[in-house]
Amino acid sequence: MPAKRQDGPFDWIDAQREQRRRAGLVRELRPRPATSPLLDLAGNDYLGLARHPGVTAAAGAAAREWGAGSTGSRLVTGSTELHARLEAELAAFCGFEAALVLSSGYAANLAAVTALTVRGGLLVSDESNHASLIDGCRLSRAETAVVPHADPEAVRKALDGHDGPALAVTDSVFSVDGDAAPLRELADACRAGGAGLLVDDAHGLGVLGDGGRGAPYAAGLAGAGDVVATVTLSKSLGSQGGAVLGPARVVEHLVNTARTLIFDTGLNPAAAGAALAALRLLRGEPGRAERVREVAGALHAGLTAAGLAAVRPDAAVVSVRAPSPEAAVRWAADCRAAGLAVGCFRPPSVPDGVSRLRLTARADLTDEQVARAVETVAGTAPRPV
Amino acid sequence: MPAKRQDGPFDWIDAQREQRRRAGLVRELRPRPATSPLLDLAGNDYLGLARHPGVTAAAGAAAREWGAGSTGSRLVTGSTELHARLEAELAAFCGFEAALVLSSGYAANLAAVTALTVRGGLLVSDESNHASLIDGCRLSRAETAVVPHADPEAVRKALDGHDGPALAVTDSVFSVDGDAAPLRELADACRAGGAGLLVDDAHGLGVLGDGGRGAPYAAGLAGAGDVVATVTLSKSLGSQGGAVLGPARVVEHLVNTARTLIFDTGLNPAAAGAALAALRLLRGEPGRAERVREVAGALHAGLTAAGLAAVRPDAAVVSVRAPSPEAAVRWAADCRAAGLAVGCFRPPSVPDGVSRLRLTARADLTDEQVARAVETVAGTAPRPV
Repeated sequence: MPAKRQDGPFDWIDAQREQRRRAGLVRELRPRPATSPLLDLAGNDYLGLARHPGVTAAAGAAAREWGAGSTGSRLVTGSTELHARLEAELAAFCGFEAALVLSSGYAANLAAVTALTVRGGLLVSDESNHASLIDGCRLSRAETAVVPHADPEAVRKALDGHDGPALAVTDSVFSVDGDAAPLRELADACRAGGAGLLVDDAHGLGVLGDGGRGAPYAAGLAGAGDVVATVTLSKSLGSQGGAVLGPARVVEHLVNTARTLIFDTGLNPAAAGAALAALRLLRGEPGRAERVREVAGALHAGLTAAGLAAVRPDAAVVSVRAPSPEAAVRWAADCRAAGLAVGCFRPPSVPDGVSRLRLTARADLTDEQVARAVETVAGTAPRPV
Repeated sequence: MPAKRQDGPFDWIDAQREQRRRAGLVRELRPRPATSPLLDLAGNDYLGLARHPGVTAAAGAAAREWGAGSTGSRLVTGSTELHARLEAELAAFCGFEAALVLSSGYAANLAAVTALTVRGGLLVSDESNHASLIDGCRLSRAETAVVPHADPEAVRKALDGHDGPALAVTDSVFSVDGDAAPLRELADACRAGGAGLLVDDAHGLGVLGDGGRGAPYAAGLAGAGDVVATVTLSKSLGSQGGAVLGPARVVEHLVNTARTLIFDTGLNPAAAGAALAALRLLRGEPGRAERVREVAGALHAGLTAAGLAAVRPDAAVVSVRAPSPEAAVRWAADCRAAGLAVGCFRPPSVPDGVSRLRLTARADLTDEQVARAVETVAGTAPRPV
């Protein structure tokens, strides 16, 4: 029985809405149809596996065999042998001793950051880290030192003189500009300072490293006792979920202490089954990783040749600067009208306040599609850029 | 290339492991097979829909039609018309104006608590609230006042004299003991103090209210302008995910400001499709909600008649106190050996430090299965209880 309307307590949100409107920063959900004529360079399906028939069939088969949901926390009824299989194969592929699957990459980052730090300890966090790592820092009982972007020397200084448990956290590939962290130098700084290193490889898995084994593998850090990685199952693996990869004792510690593992329902079997099928496809077709990097390079070369301010991509994300939030929105809309879906990143989703178009490479794009994308983005660009 | 092992930075976790071992508080994942001879009273599949053929088929069909993953943030490519349909039907069913689906109930709670509070504002939180609400309070910029369990008078006092935005948060049904919050009295206290009320109805949806419309609906609060609810899609709806239900302007505000919406990949289509199918089944068979309450009542009556310290269930969770963590673990193991899976809740998952068996009612249990469950729990109980 609907109650009498009492609006007062949330009136303050109207003022925020009005501010957003004036700043050109209103966001709306735009539900998409099942099939679309648009060329998609906006999603994170880097290997083109989200709609691979083998992957979607695996999702359906897993739901039939294991149920539509996992029915509980992974500590109660939410761990199936399917989850265990996915964890074993994911750890082996990426070169780590053990893996723990959670319901999202966000949950995996909250789990790793909070469980691997202690009150009185130190957390050193890159200023451009993903929101989930930042929230992990805020939930952690440790002190957080935010350091300049991709700056091993700053990490070294932050750790200098600290006594007790310390952890440095970084994205491997930064989502907004697509640039890579200097992982080897960061690991050196951590080792000099006695700190562990946590790497969020959300945008590296499936793209970087031999056959897509990820950025820690490429940097020779996979399997090290002082390195932990997180990955998502929702980008290169075309599904949903996240995982923490690391030494077995770290995973055992997370099982016992990580709140987003203990108090969350386990990943649904369809997502676990799809991710496992995608992982096996990637293992069998390592050229997919190479192809996505090739496509990203071609996008960047084309955009740069057209005079646009595109950042050289270290992985699959190609970022192009726009003069203002309004111009970025208009640009993305013009691309869409011309048949191309691109991402549009505006404050507060960009740490430096610079609005951008964000294009993502996919392994299944043809050279012709890449050329068409470049032509569309360049042809709709605001002048001057 | 696996690197040289450097263990130092995580050595501190070994001491914690040893402490857990000595306290009898070690947790392990026990992956389950696809089919099991155990009678399951441990999961949260309250309506028995996780393995309903109509629900698992919907998961597979959604993966085929929409892809195995949603491929991006809901603000980029992660919103499909399937998500929109689920949101519309969920809001209508529960009596709210609008709904927003997130990748988990945990994410929904973090979103609602952080986005509906402001720096300088006040958050009033029941001391027995779920971990995800507590983490939401810790991430919020508002001051948090933790109040005694299920105590509207304490909420009233906490709000007294506060000026500016305020929000009180509570579980509708508390996960550990299965008791319900006094929602109407809490809403009165909030209205007297000018605060909004956020209700986590994870354990109420599908169980409480007319046909399972949930606790806010049952309390006459659904659709009120000052009330927001969160639900999970992973319990009564047998799938995965969470949702925030409330006034349209609150949902619009969350789309623009909630970090676990903006920076997380949208719920995978299989989970959205399964939840939608489960919701439609529940709508068509409202007797399922009644049946699960009946089963919970029968479990409680049987356990109490056997002399056990069972808490009277307000929904589907029946909690039975154990004399110690070790006794609880042994008791659960003895039940399992006798063919019955029950939950075993120990510190730190229980706010009061009291270990318990946790039995969950399911709408698809027969009277005979209920009798067998009672007999098994009573027959394996530690003496004295």
